[in-house]
Amino acid sequence: MTSAYTNTVSSSATSPLRLGIAGLGTVGTGVIRLIREHADLIKNRTGRSLEIVAVSARNRTRNRGVDLSGLTWHDNPVDLAADKQIDVVVELMGGAEGSARDLVEASLKAGKAVVTANKALVARHAQTLAQLSHTHQTPLLFEAAVAGGIPAIKTVREGVAADKATRLGGILNGTSNFILTEMAETGRAFADVLKEAQDKGYAEADPSADIDGWDAAHKLSILTAIAFRPIDFDTLAVSGMRAITTQDIHQARQLGYAIKMLGVAKRLPEDRVEAWVQPCLIPAHSGLAQINGVYNALTIEGPFSGPITISGQGAGEGPTASAVVADLIDLARGHALPLWGRMDELAPIPCEPVEKLPSAFYLRANLNAPADAVIDADKALSEITTLLRNEGIPLAKTLHHTPLGEAPQLIMLTRPIPQEEINRILPILEETTLISGAPLALRIEDLP
Amino acid sequence: MTSAYTNTVSSSATSPLRLGIAGLGTVGTGVIRLIREHADLIKNRTGRSLEIVAVSARNRTRNRGVDLSGLTWHDNPVDLAADKQIDVVVELMGGAEGSARDLVEASLKAGKAVVTANKALVARHAQTLAQLSHTHQTPLLFEAAVAGGIPAIKTVREGVAADKATRLGGILNGTSNFILTEMAETGRAFADVLKEAQDKGYAEADPSADIDGWDAAHKLSILTAIAFRPIDFDTLAVSGMRAITTQDIHQARQLGYAIKMLGVAKRLPEDRVEAWVQPCLIPAHSGLAQINGVYNALTIEGPFSGPITISGQGAGEGPTASAVVADLIDLARGHALPLWGRMDELAPIPCEPVEKLPSAFYLRANLNAPADAVIDADKALSEITTLLRNEGIPLAKTLHHTPLGEAPQLIMLTRPIPQEEINRILPILEETTLISGAPLALRIEDLP
Repeated sequence: MTSAYTNTVSSSATSPLRLGIAGLGTVGTGVIRLIREHADLIKNRTGRSLEIVAVSARNRTRNRGVDLSGLTWHDNPVDLAADKQIDVVVELMGGAEGSARDLVEASLKAGKAVVTANKALVARHAQTLAQLSHTHQTPLLFEAAVAGGIPAIKTVREGVAADKATRLGGILNGTSNFILTEMAETGRAFADVLKEAQDKGYAEADPSADIDGWDAAHKLSILTAIAFRPIDFDTLAVSGMRAITTQDIHQARQLGYAIKMLGVAKRLPEDRVEAWVQPCLIPAHSGLAQINGVYNALTIEGPFSGPITISGQGAGEGPTASAVVADLIDLARGHALPLWGRMDELAPIPCEPVEKLPSAFYLRANLNAPADAVIDADKALSEITTLLRNEGIPLAKTLHHTPLGEAPQLIMLTRPIPQEEINRILPILEETTLISGAPLALRIEDLP
Repeated sequence: MTSAYTNTVSSSATSPLRLGIAGLGTVGTGVIRLIREHADLIKNRTGRSLEIVAVSARNRTRNRGVDLSGLTWHDNPVDLAADKQIDVVVELMGGAEGSARDLVEASLKAGKAVVTANKALVARHAQTLAQLSHTHQTPLLFEAAVAGGIPAIKTVREGVAADKATRLGGILNGTSNFILTEMAETGRAFADVLKEAQDKGYAEADPSADIDGWDAAHKLSILTAIAFRPIDFDTLAVSGMRAITTQDIHQARQLGYAIKMLGVAKRLPEDRVEAWVQPCLIPAHSGLAQINGVYNALTIEGPFSGPITISGQGAGEGPTASAVVADLIDLARGHALPLWGRMDELAPIPCEPVEKLPSAFYLRANLNAPADAVIDADKALSEITTLLRNEGIPLAKTLHHTPLGEAPQLIMLTRPIPQEEINRILPILEETTLISGAPLALRIEDLP
């Protein structure tokens, strides 16, 4: 057993590294443009040329603004796996199943190195792909699958490889971070900003993958496997940001926090792992709180290295193409590690149930009163905090405020308690006649 | 010619990688502690053990808190190069000349891979070391030489290897950043904060390397060689931070800027390179403006990747040991690139003369008046701006203010002009009877 997978790649080769590209959307054409524009630079950095020899895409006749003449065209992308001209298959179609999965698995079985930007595929079929890669000693690289142009995978798998990380936390989805940033900076409502993002093409017509946390969860699952150990993707707790209001962002800021959609994973005793995606309050001075707009960022902490944060553009043609070609450069330099950068082949374990994990929480409840009613918010706050105390919820701070034209709101910060205690108390709060609608609870994560 | 140097290292080896460590200060003992505490983790990540077999240090009897029994002791560190038990020499003595240089050169000549944290050595003898490494196909790794625990070298040499970077900028010295942060946050004077840093051991008794920019210059020179091309270290323009006052920091903040001690390098047309270390004004919202205290950070920008920023602890036993062992893990994984990550062996060129480089500048002049004098600051400002206009210095903004208990100050922001124009005007300003003492000019660098 060796630490590097050498099928298709060798650090002493000087012949061109021949590529077959599946998927010619913006990322695929971006990869072709980058390889051609930077051909001399890449050859100088690797001692080899990257030569595109074959492609596959749905529509053969569409004008993509790149010259495809002289390249072999495969109508069926899976045929790239059997094309003897090709050293490396570049999978840029996306999707956890179907052609993308068939192509990647067939390529590894054929001993062809694979580079992909497909986070869903790598996260959901992690164990199968790791085993195929290992069995055939054939590298599968996926830097572009996590945080776009940011070398997040390389940082975790190599940059901090000497340390035993204790925690990682990331802003892993640019669309949700853009929405939270716009809400914070302009005071506009979630639905309003989401619609603008959709109109401008930043967000999908079905925004669920971005705002409900699934896109971030795929990336977190991959990072967790490298930094700690593989986990069952289906046990990763995911909650989205639809309930957050600009008032929550404003109140959090007054209390010294920013609200960010975070993926967090931690090493727990006895080889257990905590991993979840949730909107959280984080200290306003923390590194991740400074990351705004469509930017992504990752902080990883270890006892020797301390916290290290890397940030940049998490999506888009240029950054994603840059990450794909960085992987190809690694292959051309003969550098290819096992999927998780480790020799053991641990089976995935379930994440620690998020309900059991203790945390301080931010609680917000809207009082049940019309905007113009004269109501005694002090009295309501007192009744609610008494209720919480009687239920054993320890509070660190309480306040109320009345947003312009709205009913008063109660804000409470708890001391650390298991999330199941919060889950238990929310319906109790909702049942009181004092409160209107569902109260909101957000974890407070004390990031550096 | 191949893209990886394979002497001493191989991706298929499974035998222990045997180390000789020269220098047993805090970093050297930190490396020993880390290797022993994380032995299982390192073996799992590389397929090999890291085995310390020999050491060298000045004092054989000093208690360093680590067990050295069973290790071969060399009184002369250079003897490690000839010790047949050793695969990799770890040089942690420091210093651009003497034993450190002799050991590293002798080790490369003997075909022994070298890992070092020695920024002065790598920056000042770049060409010699690159040639020795190439001639003997023997890797020289130096992640710990730049920005401590932050994988800055790996990010530039591998993470963004697909892109043709246009600019890099870094906060590369923790001591000077600590001093600027303390001045900004507490309003205390430079000399006062420096003395505290010296008392606490953050700053050396002779603080010149930190506050006059030489330490940052060594790191910038190394980063420039990787991102752009090798430069003559002696042509790198360096200026320090001794003239900056808390008033400057306060005024800069009012204008939307932070003052940071920066190393900046840019790709210029016709394969020329700009590189300098100076205190600068940077936009308050930029990534580097958020980096406070002893933290270091680097931003690198390319047309495809966009700006990528990495930050963390730039010094200290743990972070530096983490970077040294990350290099050892790369070697154990059979991964070792030429010094600058490129096949061509370009000779160093001089940096573009900093006097010719255009920039906007911040100008500050103290009026020649006692603190309690009633003087017409408007009139003085008008006379000074007229003088500057007559001298052809284009101004974008002017203001005056009077710090409590001090004489009024004039603050002017210029439009972009070559630095030589600023150098020409400063003595002219100083000669006017309106102004007391030397006026200060700082570059304004528009970082993302």
